[in-house]
Amino acid sequence: MKIELAKSYGFCYGVKRAIKIAEEHPNSATFGPLIHNKDEINRLKDEFNVGLVDELEDAMNYDTLVIRTHGITKDKLKTLKQNGKKIINATCPYVTTPQQIVEKMSKEGYTIVIFGDKNHPEIKGVASYSVDSERTYIVLSPEEVVGLALGSKVAIVAQTTRKPEEYKKIVAALAVRVAELRVFNTICNATFENQDATAELAKKSDVMIIIGGKNSSNTKQLQHISKSYCKDSYHIENEDELEKSWFEGKEKCGISAGASTPDWIIQKVINKIEELRK
Amino acid sequence: MKIELAKSYGFCYGVKRAIKIAEEHPNSATFGPLIHNKDEINRLKDEFNVGLVDELEDAMNYDTLVIRTHGITKDKLKTLKQNGKKIINATCPYVTTPQQIVEKMSKEGYTIVIFGDKNHPEIKGVASYSVDSERTYIVLSPEEVVGLALGSKVAIVAQTTRKPEEYKKIVAALAVRVAELRVFNTICNATFENQDATAELAKKSDVMIIIGGKNSSNTKQLQHISKSYCKDSYHIENEDELEKSWFEGKEKCGISAGASTPDWIIQKVINKIEELRK
Repeated sequence: MKIELAKSYGFCYGVKRAIKIAEEHPNSATFGPLIHNKDEINRLKDEFNVGLVDELEDAMNYDTLVIRTHGITKDKLKTLKQNGKKIINATCPYVTTPQQIVEKMSKEGYTIVIFGDKNHPEIKGVASYSVDSERTYIVLSPEEVVGLALGSKVAIVAQTTRKPEEYKKIVAALAVRVAELRVFNTICNATFENQDATAELAKKSDVMIIIGGKNSSNTKQLQHISKSYCKDSYHIENEDELEKSWFEGKEKCGISAGASTPDWIIQKVINKIEELRK
Repeated sequence: MKIELAKSYGFCYGVKRAIKIAEEHPNSATFGPLIHNKDEINRLKDEFNVGLVDELEDAMNYDTLVIRTHGITKDKLKTLKQNGKKIINATCPYVTTPQQIVEKMSKEGYTIVIFGDKNHPEIKGVASYSVDSERTYIVLSPEEVVGLALGSKVAIVAQTTRKPEEYKKIVAALAVRVAELRVFNTICNATFENQDATAELAKKSDVMIIIGGKNSSNTKQLQHISKSYCKDSYHIENEDELEKSWFEGKEKCGISAGASTPDWIIQKVINKIEELRK
């Protein structure tokens, strides 16, 4: 049986970069989990003594703090700096961009609209860069745009993981509401690259193994896509869940992984599959 | 029988303004017809000796030239000025705006997209203000946007008479194609105001008279809207077409007029209707 990895899978560019930055700063702590994967967080703790703090209070126990891919709010960053902390910024460049746009556009008098989830740390961070919080709106649907006091000039950015089709609907709803609308395409296509590559691989595979947290929405999405092309698709968290029977009589096994799945977990799964096939 | 005029009808703000400007400059000529209505053009000639030229060559016979609501191309304007002509600018302010936007945005390196008809004088004028004609595109549908070499920054304006719903579709098509899209809402709602007022009046009328050129597309649109609410709707060019039978047994007669219909023609129609009802 041939085993093939999807052309794009697992960590995106920003997460890979953040983990590398964390590894380069032992004895630091990340402000918020660097990734939604406990195994990887434990590995960083065990191998590099990189801790994890969720609150400013706990951050005070460390000299060096790593800002995760999502970024943090401007106020929290300021507090950390004022307390003499060394800041290692691992904010994903694709998140830094909307932060900078929101700051610049709000300074130029544009009302800010952010397409995203107001409870998501990335969006809390991006919104915090507006110099006028009263003229900063966070929306998830075109319906939410109705009735907003927008003024004549609006700038809009999107959460990096949002769907382009949904963004287009919100942009269309705003386009003829105001005299000028500045649309910044801040959507990152890493998620879609993993999805497209999974679909492509599933089409030519007998059996598909999708690796990622059972609660990971992007992994569940990959499994959903995979299953639509290859009925024998299995969503697992780690190699312990693999069953020998899945591979019996199969010629080609495709493998993909969610955005929070580290390479070393993927490698363990591959090793186990090869063992089961012996 | 009660006769009622629609709340909004006939000339838009820009045309009224242009005619007033022309009347204030006797012995001049308008560059291109001020309005698509021969009777009104003849009146300006008879009462104010305001002529009409279509070509630069003919313009040379006049000292003073009135630029009509549509505007003209930057090059033609320059030629007229270089030849010592006195320029009276009656370009509609709603058309001046996209001209200025296109000039400014193209100077700032934005690729220009214009939603409109490339053969329409307004659009020829607006497009002429781009400093980079190779990076200036005129489109009428979202499909035409596909495959354009857009670069990363795009600014878009619309012909003043376009439908907002159509503009939204083109904006949506561009929104996730480029890093930044600046959408300027340059659509004028005068056309829609006449349409809405005609619909409102038709709903409560027994008979509707829609006045305007038989080839005028906006008048035809008014007639179409009127007929959908009041089956006895008639599209006429002038009072000579009125028939006594249309008003027999009617209690309420509504009147509307296309954007090229002067008030004095409307008044003649009203006078004739009152005469027929005697």
